[in-house]
Amino acid sequence: MHPTSKMNRLLITGAAGGLGHALRSRLSHLAHTIRLSDVADLGDAAPHEEIVPCDLADKAAVDALVEGCDGIVHFGGKSIEGTWEVIRDSNIEGVYNLYEAARKHGHPRIVFASSNHAVGFYRQDQVIDNTVYPQPDGLYGVSKVFGEMMASAYWNKFGQETAVVRIGSSFDEPKTHRMLSSWMSYGDFVSLIERVFDVPRLGCPVIYGVSDNDTVWWDNTKVAWLGWRPQDNSETFRAKLDASEAKFPGDAPDVVYQGGSFTADGIHEK
Amino acid sequence: MHPTSKMNRLLITGAAGGLGHALRSRLSHLAHTIRLSDVADLGDAAPHEEIVPCDLADKAAVDALVEGCDGIVHFGGKSIEGTWEVIRDSNIEGVYNLYEAARKHGHPRIVFASSNHAVGFYRQDQVIDNTVYPQPDGLYGVSKVFGEMMASAYWNKFGQETAVVRIGSSFDEPKTHRMLSSWMSYGDFVSLIERVFDVPRLGCPVIYGVSDNDTVWWDNTKVAWLGWRPQDNSETFRAKLDASEAKFPGDAPDVVYQGGSFTADGIHEK
Amino acid sequence: MHPTSKMNRLLITGAAGGLGHALRSRLSHLAHTIRLSDVADLGDAAPHEEIVPCDLADKAAVDALVEGCDGIVHFGGKSIEGTWEVIRDSNIEGVYNLYEAARKHGHPRIVFASSNHAVGFYRQDQVIDNTVYPQPDGLYGVSKVFGEMMASAYWNKFGQETAVVRIGSSFDEPKTHRMLSSWMSYGDFVSLIERVFDVPRLGCPVIYGVSDNDTVWWDNTKVAWLGWRPQDNSETFRAKLDASEAKFPGDAPDVVYQGGSFTADGIHEK
Amino acid sequence: MHPTSKMNRLLITGAAGGLGHALRSRLSHLAHTIRLSDVADLGDAAPHEEIVPCDLADKAAVDALVEGCDGIVHFGGKSIEGTWEVIRDSNIEGVYNLYEAARKHGHPRIVFASSNHAVGFYRQDQVIDNTVYPQPDGLYGVSKVFGEMMASAYWNKFGQETAVVRIGSSFDEPKTHRMLSSWMSYGDFVSLIERVFDVPRLGCPVIYGVSDNDTVWWDNTKVAWLGWRPQDNSETFRAKLDASEAKFPGDAPDVVYQGGSFTADGIHEK
Amino acid sequence: MHPTSKMNRLLITGAAGGLGHALRSRLSHLAHTIRLSDVADLGDAAPHEEIVPCDLADKAAVDALVEGCDGIVHFGGKSIEGTWEVIRDSNIEGVYNLYEAARKHGHPRIVFASSNHAVGFYRQDQVIDNTVYPQPDGLYGVSKVFGEMMASAYWNKFGQETAVVRIGSSFDEPKTHRMLSSWMSYGDFVSLIERVFDVPRLGCPVIYGVSDNDTVWWDNTKVAWLGWRPQDNSETFRAKLDASEAKFPGDAPDVVYQGGSFTADGIHEK
Amino acid sequence: MHPTSKMNRLLITGAAGGLGHALRSRLSHLAHTIRLSDVADLGDAAPHEEIVPCDLADKAAVDALVEGCDGIVHFGGKSIEGTWEVIRDSNIEGVYNLYEAARKHGHPRIVFASSNHAVGFYRQDQVIDNTVYPQPDGLYGVSKVFGEMMASAYWNKFGQETAVVRIGSSFDEPKTHRMLSSWMSYGDFVSLIERVFDVPRLGCPVIYGVSDNDTVWWDNTKVAWLGWRPQDNSETFRAKLDASEAKFPGDAPDVVYQGGSFTADGIHEK
Repeated sequence: MHPTSKMNRLLITGAAGGLGHALRSRLSHLAHTIRLSDVADLGDAAPHEEIVPCDLADKAAVDALVEGCDGIVHFGGKSIEGTWEVIRDSNIEGVYNLYEAARKHGHPRIVFASSNHAVGFYRQDQVIDNTVYPQPDGLYGVSKVFGEMMASAYWNKFGQETAVVRIGSSFDEPKTHRMLSSWMSYGDFVSLIERVFDVPRLGCPVIYGVSDNDTVWWDNTKVAWLGWRPQDNSETFRAKLDASEAKFPGDAPDVVYQGGSFTADGIHEK
Repeated sequence: MHPTSKMNRLLITGAAGGLGHALRSRLSHLAHTIRLSDVADLGDAAPHEEIVPCDLADKAAVDALVEGCDGIVHFGGKSIEGTWEVIRDSNIEGVYNLYEAARKHGHPRIVFASSNHAVGFYRQDQVIDNTVYPQPDGLYGVSKVFGEMMASAYWNKFGQETAVVRIGSSFDEPKTHRMLSSWMSYGDFVSLIERVFDVPRLGCPVIYGVSDNDTVWWDNTKVAWLGWRPQDNSETFRAKLDASEAKFPGDAPDVVYQGGSFTADGIHEK
Repeated sequence: MHPTSKMNRLLITGAAGGLGHALRSRLSHLAHTIRLSDVADLGDAAPHEEIVPCDLADKAAVDALVEGCDGIVHFGGKSIEGTWEVIRDSNIEGVYNLYEAARKHGHPRIVFASSNHAVGFYRQDQVIDNTVYPQPDGLYGVSKVFGEMMASAYWNKFGQETAVVRIGSSFDEPKTHRMLSSWMSYGDFVSLIERVFDVPRLGCPVIYGVSDNDTVWWDNTKVAWLGWRPQDNSETFRAKLDASEAKFPGDAPDVVYQGGSFTADGIHEK
Repeated sequence: MHPTSKMNRLLITGAAGGLGHALRSRLSHLAHTIRLSDVADLGDAAPHEEIVPCDLADKAAVDALVEGCDGIVHFGGKSIEGTWEVIRDSNIEGVYNLYEAARKHGHPRIVFASSNHAVGFYRQDQVIDNTVYPQPDGLYGVSKVFGEMMASAYWNKFGQETAVVRIGSSFDEPKTHRMLSSWMSYGDFVSLIERVFDVPRLGCPVIYGVSDNDTVWWDNTKVAWLGWRPQDNSETFRAKLDASEAKFPGDAPDVVYQGGSFTADGIHEK
Repeated sequence: MHPTSKMNRLLITGAAGGLGHALRSRLSHLAHTIRLSDVADLGDAAPHEEIVPCDLADKAAVDALVEGCDGIVHFGGKSIEGTWEVIRDSNIEGVYNLYEAARKHGHPRIVFASSNHAVGFYRQDQVIDNTVYPQPDGLYGVSKVFGEMMASAYWNKFGQETAVVRIGSSFDEPKTHRMLSSWMSYGDFVSLIERVFDVPRLGCPVIYGVSDNDTVWWDNTKVAWLGWRPQDNSETFRAKLDASEAKFPGDAPDVVYQGGSFTADGIHEK
Repeated sequence: MHPTSKMNRLLITGAAGGLGHALRSRLSHLAHTIRLSDVADLGDAAPHEEIVPCDLADKAAVDALVEGCDGIVHFGGKSIEGTWEVIRDSNIEGVYNLYEAARKHGHPRIVFASSNHAVGFYRQDQVIDNTVYPQPDGLYGVSKVFGEMMASAYWNKFGQETAVVRIGSSFDEPKTHRMLSSWMSYGDFVSLIERVFDVPRLGCPVIYGVSDNDTVWWDNTKVAWLGWRPQDNSETFRAKLDASEAKFPGDAPDVVYQGGSFTADGIHEK
């Protein structure tokens, strides 16, 4: 990205989590200052970093967190299934707080980490695009659709721009056969975020966060205008997975539904 | 409806509200006992009625409310825009409580009062069907999509059936020119609810709650299998409205978006 | 229909079957002579009738049967599930023989009695049109798709015109709750056949044979150019059915699939 | 229509033509003054009428014609196939002049008489909606698409509103079998024009101008928001046509293409 | 493919035909034993092969043939146009026998060699996907749709899995200009069959069997979940074909229809 | 391209313009003689060239120009917005003259240079295919749709073949950020024209003229049968553009609409 468009300050929430940790250094070229936030320990700040601990359910704290930022990568909140109370506080209350803060502080562009679990009950033998009606596979998935809807409403009402990224499985490598379809490499995620902060007009697109894998559930044709072309392919890991993971029977949730085993989870009770 | 399929007990939440009040007596033939609930006063119970006051945000109270019911018409919660705190407690926490109670008490079939405000940012010169990606027009609309998603997840995971009804404007008559398109008569709503409780298999369809008006935004073709054919037509009220309501200019939210003036609302602050 | 377009001779195959019997007299105005054929007894011929017994599996006999006819209503063959041998001889060999005869004798226009069982595995909560890929529900359904394909190939190759009618349930009245969706009255079937023989250009359309019932699985929009508007509605029989037939549970084939109980049949063995 | 929305002055171009003559009096309730224009004689003006002869190819004259009008029903120009020179001057130059005049004089809402010949090469066994790519059937049809494009561009660029009406066959009754599909009664056309001038926001919709005929080529679902429900049905004239018009063979342009015999016309040379 | 998923016994029918011969050795890694069958001579068996001559029209023989197999590649039957008697016995009776045998012997997964001639009357300037209504181009094409329907019914009824592969033209190289669009290399076919036997859940998908050619008629997007990415491209043979084959005129069946010259064939008589 | 299919004489109109100049030598292998035409000076003819000055508005001159040509690449006419008089004479009258000449002189295959400005009001965050209803962004765009319609009508009526190419931005390299999406390299344009003159049957397809850029607005899937696979990618020029061109704000026509700044132009007055 050209220096002239470098942001002054980019906020990464949930920076102590898996994705946050992995992308913390990979996104450093996007802004002069990277503001990192989490409820967990973030270690020491590098020279270009500033660390701002924050509980997303604390409205005033979130307001202060967002102030002064030009862009936000929102990894914060619960990223797997949890009890209602945890999901509600982090993924519902927290997202409301985030969007209210953004509305009051100049509409910094947001990358919202939605999830394949927002559409987890689509089957693995379906290829869906970004116009489908969501079919979340649990409370976590429902909370992610809630976030998508906040993004949509704040875009339509206030012009707040968000890239809604339905992340498949973003790890250093796919860890299960299912992830051969859902895997997004860190490199591809970084190039997606670069595009999001580069385009003059973003709007509020829904993007499937997935690499250029051979096996495909998700069709990003309708956001091809964004210019993101992932480069990695999970297929290079197939042999390794074949050697290490037994195959599921044909009626296991892991091979029937896009959301995999999440679809078979019950409601987590306190 | 045939007596043999009469329910034992039908719960109507929000029974003191406008819709609840209007349909309280009109639904009495559906069950031997009508259980009415609200936080507001419900007056005296008729012989076939039982009154159970309940705050939807109170999980234990909702659990007790739902127990023993064969069907639920869920009008409860905030039915217009409100502050985040009110919307959250009644339409998010309340709906979570309702679905958890239903899960634990035998999956009574639910009519969920969703709203046109779940898709309020579609334009009035568009005709949409029930497969579109929601575009809510505010916190209220977002909360309604939350409820739709809970219905979807509980159907896919647990087999809980819900008729998601995106109510247009259900009053004794249309009160604005916009309602010529969105109006659903009480009679048509009743016949819809009759169909919902009559079909052997409901699943979780999304249905636009609107009469057979001349002006049409919503296409129910995909739920025609349900057999609901509304009989009323707002057109009979056009002359009266022409005489009483000045027309909006062509760029007013009331004539541009399906959600009307809700789309122009800001966020309600405490 | 205008006298000038009255056919000289109309062949009705399977005329001793249920549909054949019911329509035998109702179609008499379409031609000067009605040729009736079946393997079963057809009783006495009326003055305008001629009776030609014929086994559809007998190629030479079918050739003779078709010769001299201007139009054919093909009700012949097995109309429910059967053993492979019966289905093959009557619905596969028989249909091949019919189309070969028609090809050699001037391409009389054909009404081909296909069936909802050609698409029987579509669900009852889906509304399908005539472009869907077939999903037959058994050998009978497969044989009906075979007939549809013969019609298609002979149209594309030789200009042979056929109205492929996917008959729902054509009886004097609906006999089950499922038939509230699939019922086609005799009167509506007659008006469809009138349209088929009246239009100057027919081609080879696929038409769902169903009355104007409240409950709808099938969308004939794409053949609206034909001008057929059914007039009857099964709804008038609902109360009677409610009184006489117990409802199926929500997971019974009779209420899940359009093909109803056929979908649950095994293969009929000799 | 409510008096308060009555226009001050409505311009009808081509008022001496067939449609213009038929609707001249039927539209008189829409405005205090009806301005009538044509190159042919218009007879005497009624008290509420004013007559302004005008050649549409004369830019200055068209400018003067449009000035002071609140609405325009544009029937002017050549309404059947003609030589290039006539089509160009009346339907291309004339339409450019009309839109330029409207742009300069306050954007009076326009009803543009487009034609089924803009899509004349679609087949009669197809049902098309208003999103299809045009397939004009000759120079006349091409000129009508030109007009549609001017309407589209002036709407998108300048906010000029136009109802593009693809008129089928608007006569007192259908005169051929083909018109059983394409016929629009005068009464239905009037009610369409009433709706066009009544809606607060029109935009630039494409509407098929056709009555509620049994035989259907055109699907107006996407403009159902306009609230126009035609009441007449050509079917009442079928018997009369059957008695008076011989049927075409199945490969005649009159029964193959929506544009009928126009599709078989050559280019009219001077 | 990983050894752990290697089949015990794979049956290849029609193994003496062109495709069977070409793939006989190329598929040997898929199973410990390759059972080869045909009515024609199959030569000597290699150590890992077993040869079982079989007439597909012989039900008992097919039953014995299928018993003990984990997978079936069904190339057997007539692979070009033929007389009705031949088509019926090999492609209709034979396929019925195959599916009945599979039903009785544990549902071995099947690769069914369908054909582009199942959709041969689609035009070459159309790009179709796997949801289109078939348009077979002759008796052979009709028989292939019959087979597709058997696969569909046995999947829906009994859970029998089949990969329906609509083979374009599978030769060592394209032999005509038409095959530049329809060619599938042996290598690509092998990788497709590998994927079919590798996925935990196959269902009954329809797949166009075609390489990654520049010229495209068929869109496999909806089966992209399978992970098959063909690697070869017919374009490398264009210059050779240009030098050896004269071009067809623009209205020749070979360049108008996807099925090419098959569409112009008459019915083969005995 | 194979020598046997080399044309005798290829006409390039507008050969003195930007595109004409660039492709003049690049297309020389397609015909024994290249006939070049323009109203502007074309310099000296190379040995295989012949120069025929011509005003497209002069019908007789165009007739003479076309006579004796086997193919036409029509770059002539105004290629940006202009006054009505200029647009009309060159792009409307001129195109009529061209098609009439082609009709009279053996239907030489035509490449018609349409433009992205025929669909310029589609947004840049939309990906459109070739079936969309045009939305031209000014008089120039309207004139290009006029040309597309002439091509369509002459194909349907007379069998005149045309490749309608909606050219994005064809320069030696993209000159603005917008052109990163719309750019077509000269090399890719040449390979497209080669395909157009190579296929035995062309018909009248609409093709988006754009290279294989990372950022995509246009979907050529429906013309994939043509076999054109562009090879160049504008992305190689992004860094250079980032360094030289300031970014537009998010609501600038240059980043909102596919037609860019053309959409904001007024009508050019004389």
